[in-house]
Amino acid sequence: MNRDHNEPLIVQEVAPRDGLQIEKQWVETEDKIALIDGLSTCGFTRIEAGSFVSPKAIPALRDGDAVFNGIRRGQGVTYVALVPNVKGAQRAIAASADELNLVMSASQTHNRANMRMSCESSLAGFGDVVQLVRNAPYPVSLNATVATAFGCPFEGRIDEERVVSIARTYREMGIAGITLADTTGMANPRQVARLVARVLELVPAADLTLHFHNTRGLGLANVLAAYDAGARRFDAALGGLGGCPFAPGASGNICTEDLVNMCEEMGIPTGVDLQKLIALSRTLPALVGHEVSGQVAKAGRNCDLHPAPEYVRTI
Amino acid sequence: MNRDHNEPLIVQEVAPRDGLQIEKQWVETEDKIALIDGLSTCGFTRIEAGSFVSPKAIPALRDGDAVFNGIRRGQGVTYVALVPNVKGAQRAIAASADELNLVMSASQTHNRANMRMSCESSLAGFGDVVQLVRNAPYPVSLNATVATAFGCPFEGRIDEERVVSIARTYREMGIAGITLADTTGMANPRQVARLVARVLELVPAADLTLHFHNTRGLGLANVLAAYDAGARRFDAALGGLGGCPFAPGASGNICTEDLVNMCEEMGIPTGVDLQKLIALSRTLPALVGHEVSGQVAKAGRNCDLHPAPEYVRTI
Repeated sequence: MNRDHNEPLIVQEVAPRDGLQIEKQWVETEDKIALIDGLSTCGFTRIEAGSFVSPKAIPALRDGDAVFNGIRRGQGVTYVALVPNVKGAQRAIAASADELNLVMSASQTHNRANMRMSCESSLAGFGDVVQLVRNAPYPVSLNATVATAFGCPFEGRIDEERVVSIARTYREMGIAGITLADTTGMANPRQVARLVARVLELVPAADLTLHFHNTRGLGLANVLAAYDAGARRFDAALGGLGGCPFAPGASGNICTEDLVNMCEEMGIPTGVDLQKLIALSRTLPALVGHEVSGQVAKAGRNCDLHPAPEYVRTI
Repeated sequence: MNRDHNEPLIVQEVAPRDGLQIEKQWVETEDKIALIDGLSTCGFTRIEAGSFVSPKAIPALRDGDAVFNGIRRGQGVTYVALVPNVKGAQRAIAASADELNLVMSASQTHNRANMRMSCESSLAGFGDVVQLVRNAPYPVSLNATVATAFGCPFEGRIDEERVVSIARTYREMGIAGITLADTTGMANPRQVARLVARVLELVPAADLTLHFHNTRGLGLANVLAAYDAGARRFDAALGGLGGCPFAPGASGNICTEDLVNMCEEMGIPTGVDLQKLIALSRTLPALVGHEVSGQVAKAGRNCDLHPAPEYVRTI
């Protein structure tokens, strides 16, 4: 629990992408831009701002180009775009995304269900994107995600060796950034500690991101286990937006303000302004048309004290 | 993370008391009894089944006597009653409660607000209850809770020394069981690890209970920190029932099925039947008239796999 305990924890905000992608209520392009611009003032150094996927597959994010072209780029902020293939990568580069994030599932079944192709086809496509990025007109970073790295809703347990081997393959292909994603919230803290330790033998902490969902309530416990094992970069979504089609009503991504609150209470610096974040999170229910799962925006920070009841003075 | 990592974790189910006490919809006595009887078949060894407080203070639990007299006592299950004073203790003993749980806040302001008396008056009352229990017609166990042990919504930070000193006082008075309660969800894992280590110098692990709320999303992370620090007994409420008047909409107690699921995934035995628990939790929304905050009853267990979509076969 005490290893490197004051090293900063880097939060990558993913609400504009992984949060909004499953929302049924259409969020206007200008509202997406306002949300991202709001996030850019909170102190994040990384924001996943949208995706360049087929509008048929994810209609909620069909305006990725307009969003990337409309946002005000904060200084020192890396704006990431999720791309499924070369076509998406071309669009993302045309929209000046700073970093591209590719996704393949460790589970063959999940990759076929989610990306509609085998893992082998996914990897071949990644090779084409690596080539494209090498010839890009400006420096573009690359990240690739191992989805279902901690469990698959179709296959169940995922072999740790397979995840490690995919991470190795990504690196050998020239992809620097690696994300281990608990796509449907099946990870537990001990498993996380083990897998993170393994992957950190291949990938420097500065290049490794952990992406947890809170589907079974373990999101923040998993963050701590990963942090204690040496991981330093974590995805989180404002308000805990996002979710999983297999867990209706359950929580989505870990909630950014809950994560930042935990870090502040524990003395781990994040560089993110919690008060601004809470104010921004409180605008979400109006934006998406429903309550969101984050707790701190409802409960307030520990330091937001309450007045004692009147009668206390007379006791 | 690996200390004593297969020692059992004991879950004390508190939904019938700490869960139901803030519910606005009246839960019929027979439904409370059915809930407790259902819990008694899930493998718990401890259930906080009700309280004997003034019906004006907590109308939702005004039928404590009828509940205790109506339940079927499971073999090896300790049925605990919360009591605020000697009068409550007399009622609890008349109803054959196995154990009495007393409560005082570490925060003077919170104790005055919650118990309507100073900490000194609370302790004097505890002395009277200890005497009463010594003369009880059957063996009655005693537990006392230090509420707001990790923070107070009125006073903020609570001095660790004060909490340790209250635990010492309880023990010196002849109260064996000690609960450290994070009444409004202000604890963080590092603070928990520190305080648990301190209190375990005074109180054997078999007598120490940790009571966490998930108000700011840290409930299960705090359980793990306490477990790793040597604590073995934890309160939790089915469905995550309960809450706090200062955090409308935020989570209440840590959720029993989410806790048991975490333990199962990590290989920590609890003796509780997760499947039965989930089935029971799914009856709660009808009982209390609203959705509850637990996640696993919505998402299912990791091993509850989903069929892959049809089209996967053709890829």
